[in-house]
Amino acid sequence: MNIGIQPASLTTDWASGRVDGAGVVRARRTIGDLHGLFTDEAARAALPQDRLAYATECAFPVAEGTAGGLFWGTTIIEPGLVGDEYLMTKGHFHAHADRTEFYFTYAGEGLLLLMDRARRCRAERMVAGSTHAIPPDTAHRTINIGSVPLSFGACWPSDAGHDYAAIARDGFAARVRRIAGVATVVAA
Amino acid sequence: MNIGIQPASLTTDWASGRVDGAGVVRARRTIGDLHGLFTDEAARAALPQDRLAYATECAFPVAEGTAGGLFWGTTIIEPGLVGDEYLMTKGHFHAHADRTEFYFTYAGEGLLLLMDRARRCRAERMVAGSTHAIPPDTAHRTINIGSVPLSFGACWPSDAGHDYAAIARDGFAARVRRIAGVATVVAA
Repeated sequence: MNIGIQPASLTTDWASGRVDGAGVVRARRTIGDLHGLFTDEAARAALPQDRLAYATECAFPVAEGTAGGLFWGTTIIEPGLVGDEYLMTKGHFHAHADRTEFYFTYAGEGLLLLMDRARRCRAERMVAGSTHAIPPDTAHRTINIGSVPLSFGACWPSDAGHDYAAIARDGFAARVRRIAGVATVVAA
Repeated sequence: MNIGIQPASLTTDWASGRVDGAGVVRARRTIGDLHGLFTDEAARAALPQDRLAYATECAFPVAEGTAGGLFWGTTIIEPGLVGDEYLMTKGHFHAHADRTEFYFTYAGEGLLLLMDRARRCRAERMVAGSTHAIPPDTAHRTINIGSVPLSFGACWPSDAGHDYAAIARDGFAARVRRIAGVATVVAA
């Protein structure tokens, strides 16, 4: 008896990073969702609040919190400035501190800002193909420093969880500013 | 004080799947390494034993066995037949049974053969962009059914481990054979 061949339930477009398939969850963060994220809050408030800042497309083949599972998704950050800061994600630690993550860039130009619990920061350049192993107990934020959308993929443990509260309260110890036309990482 | 921007320590070429960077571990499996894998052992023994069957390029940012870590790598399977079976990987369960894995295809044409502990098999088609969530406690083997190298990436937990012994002893309950020119999944 022959055994049927099924298509994969998910696809990833390696040029754009777009993820498609049954059960893919799409989310949007607008300028209005990013209240308090930028130094120049007045500049953020002056922008159209429903303007897209970044979008995510994720596959969750097991339930959130399941031990041993993995999730897969893409984030696409729009280009743009808020004052002298570039559009960026909120950033987070993992709730389960030893859980790591891979980021991998499909298109655009960005920075991955990393901060350990001692608030030491460093930045890695994101370009098509750059592949980033995020260490344990390290907050991570991505910043689009280019003129086109920054698209990158992620694979992370289904029991990593997200701790957004520490970053919402204390921020990162570094910011990325456009200084004389150049993306520059400075102490916050 | 400005904070320096570093390049990523790893790169992935989305066209070929090739992984490069400090610490990337490359391994090769030759026809000679695949003793006992195919039904037609005489056909395998008659081929050049040092001929490449598949190659892997992997990044291990944390030590094997570390909880919460992830590994990243690419496998490239050469095209070819051994008797009426296509070149394929050995296949394995994870030693830590609840650990899952993502496979994602860069180039070529293949099949992902999956088998649960009750020896129920199913197959998913691998084409560029196909993205596969391997469930817990499920053996996985990849087969190049095309005429060019099959290249796919993987991301898996650093404490998944590999159980090759069950497959070496009992095999998969299904095989992929070339029947009338078509890759066909049949009961073993």
